[in-house]
Amino acid sequence: MRTYDLVIVGAGSGNTIVDERFSHLDVALVEEAAFGGTCLNRGCIPSKMLVHVADLTDGIRDAGRFGVQAELGGVDWPAVRERVFGRLDREAAEGERGRRDAPNVDVLKGRARFTGDRTLLVGDGADAVTVRGEQVVIAAGSRPDVPAPVRDSGLPYETSDTVMRLDRPPRHLAVLGGGYVAAELAHVFHAAGSRITVIEQEDSLLSAQDESVAAAYTAIAADRYDLRTGTALTRVEGEPGRLRLVLDDDTAVEADTLLVAVGRTPNSDLIDADRAGVPLHDDGRVAVDAFQRTGAPGVFALGDVCTPFPLKHVANREAHVVAHNLLHPGDPIRTSHGAVPAAVFTRPQIAQVGRTEQQCRKEGLDYAVHVRRFADTAYGWALEDSTGFCKVLADRRTGLLLGAHIMGPQAASLIQPLVVAMSCGITAGDLARTPLWIHPAPTEVVSNALLDLHRALGHR
Amino acid sequence: MRTYDLVIVGAGSGNTIVDERFSHLDVALVEEAAFGGTCLNRGCIPSKMLVHVADLTDGIRDAGRFGVQAELGGVDWPAVRERVFGRLDREAAEGERGRRDAPNVDVLKGRARFTGDRTLLVGDGADAVTVRGEQVVIAAGSRPDVPAPVRDSGLPYETSDTVMRLDRPPRHLAVLGGGYVAAELAHVFHAAGSRITVIEQEDSLLSAQDESVAAAYTAIAADRYDLRTGTALTRVEGEPGRLRLVLDDDTAVEADTLLVAVGRTPNSDLIDADRAGVPLHDDGRVAVDAFQRTGAPGVFALGDVCTPFPLKHVANREAHVVAHNLLHPGDPIRTSHGAVPAAVFTRPQIAQVGRTEQQCRKEGLDYAVHVRRFADTAYGWALEDSTGFCKVLADRRTGLLLGAHIMGPQAASLIQPLVVAMSCGITAGDLARTPLWIHPAPTEVVSNALLDLHRALGHR
Repeated sequence: MRTYDLVIVGAGSGNTIVDERFSHLDVALVEEAAFGGTCLNRGCIPSKMLVHVADLTDGIRDAGRFGVQAELGGVDWPAVRERVFGRLDREAAEGERGRRDAPNVDVLKGRARFTGDRTLLVGDGADAVTVRGEQVVIAAGSRPDVPAPVRDSGLPYETSDTVMRLDRPPRHLAVLGGGYVAAELAHVFHAAGSRITVIEQEDSLLSAQDESVAAAYTAIAADRYDLRTGTALTRVEGEPGRLRLVLDDDTAVEADTLLVAVGRTPNSDLIDADRAGVPLHDDGRVAVDAFQRTGAPGVFALGDVCTPFPLKHVANREAHVVAHNLLHPGDPIRTSHGAVPAAVFTRPQIAQVGRTEQQCRKEGLDYAVHVRRFADTAYGWALEDSTGFCKVLADRRTGLLLGAHIMGPQAASLIQPLVVAMSCGITAGDLARTPLWIHPAPTEVVSNALLDLHRALGHR
Repeated sequence: MRTYDLVIVGAGSGNTIVDERFSHLDVALVEEAAFGGTCLNRGCIPSKMLVHVADLTDGIRDAGRFGVQAELGGVDWPAVRERVFGRLDREAAEGERGRRDAPNVDVLKGRARFTGDRTLLVGDGADAVTVRGEQVVIAAGSRPDVPAPVRDSGLPYETSDTVMRLDRPPRHLAVLGGGYVAAELAHVFHAAGSRITVIEQEDSLLSAQDESVAAAYTAIAADRYDLRTGTALTRVEGEPGRLRLVLDDDTAVEADTLLVAVGRTPNSDLIDADRAGVPLHDDGRVAVDAFQRTGAPGVFALGDVCTPFPLKHVANREAHVVAHNLLHPGDPIRTSHGAVPAAVFTRPQIAQVGRTEQQCRKEGLDYAVHVRRFADTAYGWALEDSTGFCKVLADRRTGLLLGAHIMGPQAASLIQPLVVAMSCGITAGDLARTPLWIHPAPTEVVSNALLDLHRALGHR
């Protein structure tokens, strides 16, 4: 059994820990699949690359509205796929090679399972090795949930792990789930020519979003897709390529391909955490404190395997905290999960930070709210936008922002000044009034919403 | 002679002053042309609406690179023009109607000239009226410069006032000037099918921008347009529709249309300011103090006629200050011209705030600088961007940002968090580290540039 100064399980966000500050330490980096984790290989990055193609395609379809004459030939999916995964697979391979070339890092390929205190078995069968770490980091990520009716059918299905690498777009893609993964991938394949049916148990799509966003997006999706909300999947029948999804309202959907996008499960159940004395939450996540320390001394965790916010930018921040705390156990820093932004790269784009209005209501907060439409700003005229808006919520007493929600072009960029304000304690009024905001620019929907909110708070 | 509580000269930004706080005052609003001023009728807004069409058109031309097959038919210019100016002319007319309907506002159409202390003659000939204001606001704007060789030729030319309303795109448009107006309108007409020649005395285009931006944009423009830098126009020959522009390097450019875009002149020379005791700067701008007060008691000025930053968002801020100071002369507020952002909506888009690197050098500042390329961020991969970057400059001692410069997609939106940081005293390191930044999103080029800068400042 080899003992390392540091064993890291998972070369996704876990791989970002090791930099020149760790050059004096012997490190084992354990990964069962490609380097870069979900984000690089089957998550955020390829989906954004494909979404950009979808945005471009829909923009061409829509060009006549702007007086631009254009004929869409179609999406050359094999070329798109090759461009995306040719680059990403190369990035993953280069990431692994870089680590293998590092004199102080051993790369161990295989699944890791705890066998005892800070001790792990890596791999299976004859090639398995046991390693021990003075310190251990669990960054084992998460995987798509697959509900029983799909699993039990024995029929083929896709998840976000696989669907982006299909040889060709489905003729008819049934998407099970109405969350952000479903919203992004429905957009990707709709633009690529697939007919889309979305099946969602809740009455609206994106039901974790602010209620205004969820309602507006659901209405838009209903125009574009065959939408089956408020219904659950009972069973899957048929044969590969000719699936029949039977719903609990006694209707059925026929589709050649099924994409399961109902949520994700932390991979904590795959690592025998109990053998290392690492406690889990009831929902399966590894329990950590604000310093990213698990219940087992010397064992840290970060990212989807433990976080309440399974987002890559949160995992990166947690990795930053873990790196510091590994090196400075006597002077640890904390992770803040305040003002966490997130975006859904669908059409229209969506971004959020902080509380939804329904959360403000539920918490009994004394809040002011204002909604500004893109269509009521000069740049919105340029974009001919008719559905987008920026909704801002602030505490009536302090004027501080409680949350912000944007649906429309560039939402993921437009949210950032609001994230800065929430993180740095800048009030809605000061954010509107202290910096200048370029006119006309897409940002103006934000500044105008803030000015209106500021007035609603009783100020000028 | 009618005396008003308030006379406002110019219904562009000047028109934004009068709101419900002024309902107890008799107001005269003087405007010689359409309501909404340069911005709405012949400036920021129509140019942005046309630029969006150009962006869309160029995106379609470029779609093959993304695996999207599309055939560009062309730009239906009359439809574009009608969509843009149909809306804007309606907005201008509605703006005027709204003022005419207000019980406390008289709209006076015609040019205003001072005849004495707070006293103006409005209009010409028999219809001219004289009005006096207890307080007066000069918001008379600016107009395009036309250099002598063009003026003296007697041959037709366009300016930004007229070119956007042409019946059809020129076959060959010669653009005199290399500043932001030239850059935006060259983009508009190039995308609409015009051949473009740009004539600029300086050796680079956009020479007021940071040197990295000016150099990068000039190189891109040289690939796209016929570029004549470092040369001046000597004379214009030929006939309407067959112009011959003779340059001082003894070459000539033949073009059917000439767009003059060499700068703007404040309209202070049209108002007989001296008769009201209103002093001007040597460059022609009305001189104002930090409270927007001119040298004549009771006379304020705002916007292009007086400001060092002829930008609509600056004029709006100055109008806000003037409105307050008109109502609260004993408790006036100041205009801050710190951290003024600006964007150039060309291709690629450009945005800036604060100092350029050459200014930092000239001022002898102890600064750190870092440049991050879009191509080295995940969202840059999605955009397949190969030329864009974010450049950030910070004071080595304080870590505060001195300036930021972005060239690339969404630059005008991406600059905003940097404007917020500069306005609110947030250091480069805190801006990178305190808020989260969505991954992957276009904003990441900013956060990554800031992280690198933070390290260059000697921190981790």
